[in-house]
Amino acid sequence: MIETGTRVTIQSVIEEFVREELAQDDAHIAHAVWSMLDAGGKRLRPRITMLASRTCDADAPEDAVLASYMELIHVATLIHDDVLDNADLRRGVASTNRAFGNRFSVLAGDYLFSWVFKKVTQAYPSPVPTILAAMLAQICNGEVKQLRAAGNAGLGVPAYLEIIGKKTAELFAACAECGAVVALARTKGPDPAARDLAPVKALRAYGWSFGMAFQIRDDLLDVTATQDVIGKPAGSDLREKKMTLPLIYALQTGGAPVRAAVDALFAIDDPGAIAASPELARVVDAIRDRRVVDLTAAAIAQHASEAEAALHALAPSPARDELAALARQLTQISS
Amino acid sequence: MIETGTRVTIQSVIEEFVREELAQDDAHIAHAVWSMLDAGGKRLRPRITMLASRTCDADAPEDAVLASYMELIHVATLIHDDVLDNADLRRGVASTNRAFGNRFSVLAGDYLFSWVFKKVTQAYPSPVPTILAAMLAQICNGEVKQLRAAGNAGLGVPAYLEIIGKKTAELFAACAECGAVVALARTKGPDPAARDLAPVKALRAYGWSFGMAFQIRDDLLDVTATQDVIGKPAGSDLREKKMTLPLIYALQTGGAPVRAAVDALFAIDDPGAIAASPELARVVDAIRDRRVVDLTAAAIAQHASEAEAALHALAPSPARDELAALARQLTQISS
Repeated sequence: MIETGTRVTIQSVIEEFVREELAQDDAHIAHAVWSMLDAGGKRLRPRITMLASRTCDADAPEDAVLASYMELIHVATLIHDDVLDNADLRRGVASTNRAFGNRFSVLAGDYLFSWVFKKVTQAYPSPVPTILAAMLAQICNGEVKQLRAAGNAGLGVPAYLEIIGKKTAELFAACAECGAVVALARTKGPDPAARDLAPVKALRAYGWSFGMAFQIRDDLLDVTATQDVIGKPAGSDLREKKMTLPLIYALQTGGAPVRAAVDALFAIDDPGAIAASPELARVVDAIRDRRVVDLTAAAIAQHASEAEAALHALAPSPARDELAALARQLTQISS
Repeated sequence: MIETGTRVTIQSVIEEFVREELAQDDAHIAHAVWSMLDAGGKRLRPRITMLASRTCDADAPEDAVLASYMELIHVATLIHDDVLDNADLRRGVASTNRAFGNRFSVLAGDYLFSWVFKKVTQAYPSPVPTILAAMLAQICNGEVKQLRAAGNAGLGVPAYLEIIGKKTAELFAACAECGAVVALARTKGPDPAARDLAPVKALRAYGWSFGMAFQIRDDLLDVTATQDVIGKPAGSDLREKKMTLPLIYALQTGGAPVRAAVDALFAIDDPGAIAASPELARVVDAIRDRRVVDLTAAAIAQHASEAEAALHALAPSPARDELAALARQLTQISS
């Protein structure tokens, strides 16, 4: 699902961009980026960027470049995530083999961030560079909070929502917002106060709610979907002692037995031992409980509805319809 | 040495800045940054930023903020360097204990880069944000090249100079350039073509040559100075199989015996074994050879002279004199 087409093939635009622009500046890093892109991905972020542009300017041809930058920022965060995963690997957790070492990955991510910022500050008007820099700072802040919340079975829903708002929703919000800012700057001229314009605010709100729904769905599928669907072993979040909304709901609805299982799981220091522990299976079962899945599905539906509702501030257009359809698709949680 | 005062205490300005501004946005990351600042450092980059400003505008009060950003970019690169060093630690090389793990350090560096960019895009005119982003991309590119050149005893002087130009000189060049751009923007108004102005070009050239001399000196002191002076065990570069100018000169002047020792050293896979190997002592001795030290000192003097010569394009001022003195101090290589 979430595979409906847009008018240009975003995949091919990004690939051509990496091949031609990035490869000229640093071939080794372009190769690493290429590997990440090759490994798949739905290109939701560039797609939302371009659709947001088109709701403001039906033609919006060259925003494919901005959309590519948004995907490359996402790739840079994935490259640094790989470094974090690598650390786990050394601690014994099974994962995919890596073609590049830690050192190179840290540098490649840094390079990609810098390179995108260089291009963005050269090509796009205020406030686009500030939106992207502030968004990246928020992502890091959210990741740090998530790191500190790992293994904290007492984490509440508000703290969870703050974390995923920063680590995930901010990027989708920035995609939609920047798509709108750039389209309006082209049709109406640059406007330093662009963030206050109604369509820009509406699209940012759409992107933010979309991102929230996207992450909660991702957290649910981590436990309920098969490895084939999510591309990694099911229960990865639990093995990393990551607090997710389904887990919080399982703790709330399951009472003392679930809490005891989670406490026992989080007390295991060796990640290898977590994977084989009976507690892992017990907590997975608790999350797959119908009540927990229903509660989580309701949270996804709520954020997806908010995303769709935000679009009402925009004039009707095929792009607006497509954004609405993307949000609705998030509510399909059967894998 | 290199401890002459400037008119404001840069140290205190940066510390206050981190305490007040950064701490409000993310207390945990501010704490990590604080630890890095506490650990010492000569604050050469902010000092050069401020002095460059003052050569263009004798008062230049608020550029202490820009100077702080330059030091924080440097700190961010150090935080990511720590991640790379950490990897070595796990491979058995002795090093300082670390208060923060790999995951946090990657995120803290990313956060700091993003946070500085957010602030810079909000506060400083074009082309300052582009200069900083392009500089960071160059640093990463240089670090990647250095990584790939590790253990390559055949690396030539031009390839070495390219690496240190990117990984070290670019930051000093950007410090001097941005200091000038911001001072001129304040006194004469923003100018998108500021990089072409004579004082800006002169200061960038100063910073670049200063950085080259600084790095070559650093490479020499790594072998010739005591641990007390450089704050880490002598010969660290050799243990990391890093190609430096003194090592290249030792290979050129020492002939087959030195090449054999270097080849034997680089053939050792276990970093712990490198530290204890007789080859390490042999290569250290070869680098401490008077001819090698003299050749390296001559290279430092050449770049320091070029830095000083670049200043001739500027009107005489106390700030210009201080920049010249900083460059001259680099030629003092006895530790």
